Amino acid sequence: MPKSKSPKTPRNAFYAQSGGVTAVINASAAGVIEACRKHKKHIGKLYAGRHGIVGALTEDLIDTGKESSEAIKALRHTPSGAFGSARYKLKGIDQDRAKYERLIEVFKAHDIGYFFYNGGNDSMDTAHKVSKIGAELGYPVVCVGVPKTVDNDLPITDCCPGFGSVAKYVAVSTREAALDVASMARTSTKVFILEVMGRHAGWIAAAAGLAGKGPKDAPHIILFPEITFDREKFLAKVKNSVETAGYCVVVVSEGVKDANGKFLADAGTQDAFGHTQLGGAAPEIARIVKEGLGYKYHWAVADYLQRAARHIASKTDVEQAYAVGKAAVEYAIKGQNAVLPVIVRKSSKPYRWEIRSAPIEAVANVEKKVPRHYVTADGFGITAACRRYLEPLIAGEDYPPFKNGLPEYVKLKNAPVRRKLKTNFKV
Amino acid sequence: MPKSKSPKTPRNAFYAQSGGVTAVINASAAGVIEACRKHKKHIGKLYAGRHGIVGALTEDLIDTGKESSEAIKALRHTPSGAFGSARYKLKGIDQDRAKYERLIEVFKAHDIGYFFYNGGNDSMDTAHKVSKIGAELGYPVVCVGVPKTVDNDLPITDCCPGFGSVAKYVAVSTREAALDVASMARTSTKVFILEVMGRHAGWIAAAAGLAGKGPKDAPHIILFPEITFDREKFLAKVKNSVETAGYCVVVVSEGVKDANGKFLADAGTQDAFGHTQLGGAAPEIARIVKEGLGYKYHWAVADYLQRAARHIASKTDVEQAYAVGKAAVEYAIKGQNAVLPVIVRKSSKPYRWEIRSAPIEAVANVEKKVPRHYVTADGFGITAACRRYLEPLIAGEDYPPFKNGLPEYVKLKNAPVRRKLKTNFKV
Repeated sequence: MPKSKSPKTPRNAFYAQSGGVTAVINASAAGVIEACRKHKKHIGKLYAGRHGIVGALTEDLIDTGKESSEAIKALRHTPSGAFGSARYKLKGIDQDRAKYERLIEVFKAHDIGYFFYNGGNDSMDTAHKVSKIGAELGYPVVCVGVPKTVDNDLPITDCCPGFGSVAKYVAVSTREAALDVASMARTSTKVFILEVMGRHAGWIAAAAGLAGKGPKDAPHIILFPEITFDREKFLAKVKNSVETAGYCVVVVSEGVKDANGKFLADAGTQDAFGHTQLGGAAPEIARIVKEGLGYKYHWAVADYLQRAARHIASKTDVEQAYAVGKAAVEYAIKGQNAVLPVIVRKSSKPYRWEIRSAPIEAVANVEKKVPRHYVTADGFGITAACRRYLEPLIAGEDYPPFKNGLPEYVKLKNAPVRRKLKTNFKV
Repeated sequence: MPKSKSPKTPRNAFYAQSGGVTAVINASAAGVIEACRKHKKHIGKLYAGRHGIVGALTEDLIDTGKESSEAIKALRHTPSGAFGSARYKLKGIDQDRAKYERLIEVFKAHDIGYFFYNGGNDSMDTAHKVSKIGAELGYPVVCVGVPKTVDNDLPITDCCPGFGSVAKYVAVSTREAALDVASMARTSTKVFILEVMGRHAGWIAAAAGLAGKGPKDAPHIILFPEITFDREKFLAKVKNSVETAGYCVVVVSEGVKDANGKFLADAGTQDAFGHTQLGGAAPEIARIVKEGLGYKYHWAVADYLQRAARHIASKTDVEQAYAVGKAAVEYAIKGQNAVLPVIVRKSSKPYRWEIRSAPIEAVANVEKKVPRHYVTADGFGITAACRRYLEPLIAGEDYPPFKNGLPEYVKLKNAPVRRKLKTNFKV
């Protein structure tokens, strides 16, 4: 049972990581934790959910106070979710009322008055609903979102922490692999295909366009989920690239669809691998090239490598990830509820940005896709405007410390908080 | 026609890159070029083959003398083959006599007395044959190999330039992706599969073992081409990992075969993608996991990304790549023919190595595989001895310069040498 507290005793806070992790979500965690530690007058203990919101539902809380300041500092250079993340979507309050009530029950038991939810569109929706239900149940919780997604598909914010680093990884890898293909093409591989993430938004694919300095450089073709895949037009462009440049580098988003709205990633691989996951657009594109043109090809699927690649993170991204974590705590202390810090671009050259507060409702469940004017007329490249938008987001290197040739990433203690409730909750 | 030269005029040299390129083959090129420039008394001009040996056969030579010393210095941090490489195997002298004679014809026309061939097993065989045929035709050419292969499968040398960097890339990527899966496993992906290169040798796959600090850490399973794939044993190990660690990271070599000697990479994907190339072992393993255990999985195929990843090159590897290039020139000047520089390990801790000369014949066409005592008894991991061998090879970082968030790689002028022969040669 929670002890009764004097009015001046600060309430505790809860932080959870949600959805697919990134190279810098732990930098946001560091921002939240260090800011809480600075503001002990206003925020008592900071608990983290073991595996995100699942940790809250199951009352499996982590006491971040047991971690040294060195460990928290090291979070800034450690990829993935240090407390565990979760793919666990709470539906509408009416459909999932028991879960929302359980959250409030756990929050109440641990005197949690602040909820920091570090995630994408879905998570912002959840945070918004928790703030509503808390008020409804007479247990107000200040809910503040911390934006995160490699897909860069949140509206309002100029960009999303997590995206800049995957963008840098993809641009660097495309530049490197393109040099490789170029040097082999005379007698061997003519077409190289790299599949990248992004779901329904082509931001990550677009970032590959930074690999080249001009329209003649690789990548010669970017396949965006926003542009319907046209087999004949695609093959004509591949042929033209091979005949003029000697080779062709294709970057394909996992979310590319054909005219029937069917994912390419499903087309060739559905029988073998089931329909549940994307992934496999690259081998499908390879098959199309092989069948249509007969060129020798190679393909790569970066998958988790791209979003975990802290070793080549964008310094800008790391700074922004930390800043949104810190700002979230500052908003909460000021009593701002149901908001999230967003990144506002003041200028592109030189790049200047600041953090502002936005209503969480405006961000929840909205997807920001790549606008048409960021894609060249033929649908296969990025425009100068897109380049201007993307360039500052990958700027700067922020290497982790290395030991014996490998990056030293921190492993937290993740000490559990003693349970206070007698009830269990199955997720 | 070549002018007649005074006896004191030094003969020219020819350098060619061969086979799959690496993150550091250009560092070897820099070693060769800078050493030639230092020894102008002994070596006249240094030509490079445009696309390797194909450039020699077609008399498409590049004058490396047109490149600035800054550009050559930048080769040290530029991946891929700056002059173009080739997958072009010369067979036995009897079968391919016309090609060998053509090589000598071109060498003669350009007064080339030194041949530096930067490649793997096949290329060392070619270099050896060129040295024989030159002598036979009364046009002696000093042939010196420069070892290169990401597969690390050359005998005699302790390791091969190119391997250390791909090993580092794979170890770093495995460590990063493992953290990602670990943080998602509670509600999402349980099994992550990374496919790596290496052909018939499991050295690259073995390097993934460095990602973990002990036997409980990821990767939980390494599938070596040296060990026959056993579906049931594999599935039992996956199940055990998921049940004990919560997740399972599998690193699979592209060259893994089943008990019938059939590549896994062929098994699941042959209908869709043809039989011509390896690649696709990861999705096949994913299918096996899905069918056998039903776990949610993700898979990645690093393909060219791994061998082009100069941004995370091993400093040790870069130094060794440069050193073998430099040593090759020094051997040639001393008149050592049909040799190659090899790396000799003097001690592992601290790591000390030196370059020695070895007969090229001893290296040609021999594959060095991972010895059984480097693989754990269950066939799924690396032993302490293997770790001791691998660790120093990935040591040290050697970042390329970055500009606007991207590595600055050099693009050479690659100015052609005026043709002297009237005859063409079709390759």
